Amino acid sequence: MNISKIFQIFVPVDKKFFPLFEASAENLVQTAQKFRQLLLTTDSFDRMSVIRQVKELENRGDEFTHTIFNELSSTFITPFDREDIHALTSSLDDVVDYINGAAQRIEIFKPKEFSPEFIKMSDLLVEAATEIEIAVKELRNLKNPQKIIESCIKINSIENRADDVYHYKLKSLFETENDAIELIKRKEIIETLEKAIDKAEDVSDVLRTIIIKVA
Amino acid sequence: MNISKIFQIFVPVDKKFFPLFEASAENLVQTAQKFRQLLLTTDSFDRMSVIRQVKELENRGDEFTHTIFNELSSTFITPFDREDIHALTSSLDDVVDYINGAAQRIEIFKPKEFSPEFIKMSDLLVEAATEIEIAVKELRNLKNPQKIIESCIKINSIENRADDVYHYKLKSLFETENDAIELIKRKEIIETLEKAIDKAEDVSDVLRTIIIKVA
Amino acid sequence: MNISKIFQIFVPVDKKFFPLFEASAENLVQTAQKFRQLLLTTDSFDRMSVIRQVKELENRGDEFTHTIFNELSSTFITPFDREDIHALTSSLDDVVDYINGAAQRIEIFKPKEFSPEFIKMSDLLVEAATEIEIAVKELRNLKNPQKIIESCIKINSIENRADDVYHYKLKSLFETENDAIELIKRKEIIETLEKAIDKAEDVSDVLRTIIIKVA
Repeated sequence: MNISKIFQIFVPVDKKFFPLFEASAENLVQTAQKFRQLLLTTDSFDRMSVIRQVKELENRGDEFTHTIFNELSSTFITPFDREDIHALTSSLDDVVDYINGAAQRIEIFKPKEFSPEFIKMSDLLVEAATEIEIAVKELRNLKNPQKIIESCIKINSIENRADDVYHYKLKSLFETENDAIELIKRKEIIETLEKAIDKAEDVSDVLRTIIIKVA
Repeated sequence: MNISKIFQIFVPVDKKFFPLFEASAENLVQTAQKFRQLLLTTDSFDRMSVIRQVKELENRGDEFTHTIFNELSSTFITPFDREDIHALTSSLDDVVDYINGAAQRIEIFKPKEFSPEFIKMSDLLVEAATEIEIAVKELRNLKNPQKIIESCIKINSIENRADDVYHYKLKSLFETENDAIELIKRKEIIETLEKAIDKAEDVSDVLRTIIIKVA
Repeated sequence: MNISKIFQIFVPVDKKFFPLFEASAENLVQTAQKFRQLLLTTDSFDRMSVIRQVKELENRGDEFTHTIFNELSSTFITPFDREDIHALTSSLDDVVDYINGAAQRIEIFKPKEFSPEFIKMSDLLVEAATEIEIAVKELRNLKNPQKIIESCIKINSIENRADDVYHYKLKSLFETENDAIELIKRKEIIETLEKAIDKAEDVSDVLRTIIIKVA
């Protein structure tokens, strides 16, 4: 249906995008893991160091994003639609941005410790990032999208579980926290984590769009 | 201009998507109506039952979403661009998700009663859902998109009115509520409703994109 | 790769969209400038007048949006993909909507004065709007997209700086404001400004998509 498919029979597709997507997805996994480490770090000096590392991973992610955008401007035949390469790159960037946003809020609000729901959210974030990395590696093999579909289904289920954790935490926050400003601080952090997982689902939506087009 | 149009002259377009879109839109209308019923239910036992019904409608919506995604993977000729089928399905799902999110917050915060602005927001939500259902039923008749355009214009106007109600409620909340935590609870519910209506406008944007392509 | 490009060799492209995009971008610049003026206005009567002018600019923006949507329905050959015209128009509209949202919150919360971070955010908003206007004017000259790319890079950098200002303000708000309700009010205004700049980045993403397709 897509005229680019006809062209792609004759013209070799540029393969340089795949390593860049994979590097960006791997960077996302590292950011999510570093964030989980942050939640387990109680010493305030160690925390500052871990928060700085999350920020550095975000900067590294920005570099991958810019490199991919530059390649897009100079490459004629792409492995899939140009706008989907753009959307995939932006959505990977967004997840990392929100994880960094949550780390920044921890720096600002300096909570002494984290309840199990925060740890659970960071576990789900690592799981989602890992599924994204699996799916992104399968993009080289678009004619057999079964594994990508499986990862997307898992990411959707992770997002549903994160929603439940978020609602549960919201409930317990309002039941136990009587200091409004403390409540707002906790709510800010858990909300930013929930948005990070929403953005992971956006990555999954872009991946679905890509495989839907070649189906 | 679109090569898929040329193909569609010769190949019969698969018609199985329309009943699924319609079922999803009808499920959205039912969710909005059930939510309005929730706001009029004061007995706490009855409320729990209505909130559970909203949750069940959301689960039912998820099933339509998954069925449509599966059909997309196995169907060659679709009635309009595959990515737009995906976007329409996701955006319908989002509205239902936010209505359920508002119901969950009512379960968490247990407000004793609802001011007229909450009722008004739920009325606007039912109106928007009803226009979405009308427009989705007209997708079978894409060559004559006038009714879809009319529904989209109405949804835009509903969103503008919801914005005014939201700003008015925000104003009165801050004028009358001196307990910060109570204020946050009310603000959370009305904000989630406002986002649900924003998402209804996103459905309208997808519908516009679909008819714009075939114009 | 894009069949519309082949068609466009033979069929004259309709030029009436460019003045409309430019009018919408110019209206955005004026809205951002008017908002900056609002932050410098302390007299409450003058403020009401400036807030009303922001609202009028938003209404004017809505009219450009509707005119472009109507043109899209009646025009066969467009200067770039119909869905991108739609996305560009919607995203310009969104920025103006959020600026108006911030003005509405100032009307509701009536802060006596604005800290330097608010002024800084409004400066960044004017900068972003100005880059958008520059880029939109270059859309007439799509074969030479270098200036558009430069504006998009600048908008990305403005968004990063706005993020830093936002985090800094969040930090200082929680350090200095002990009244939870006052804190929520300030947070609401700065958050809405931050979202307006996020939406400016969405415009930049649409512009990138447009030039990526013709690359």
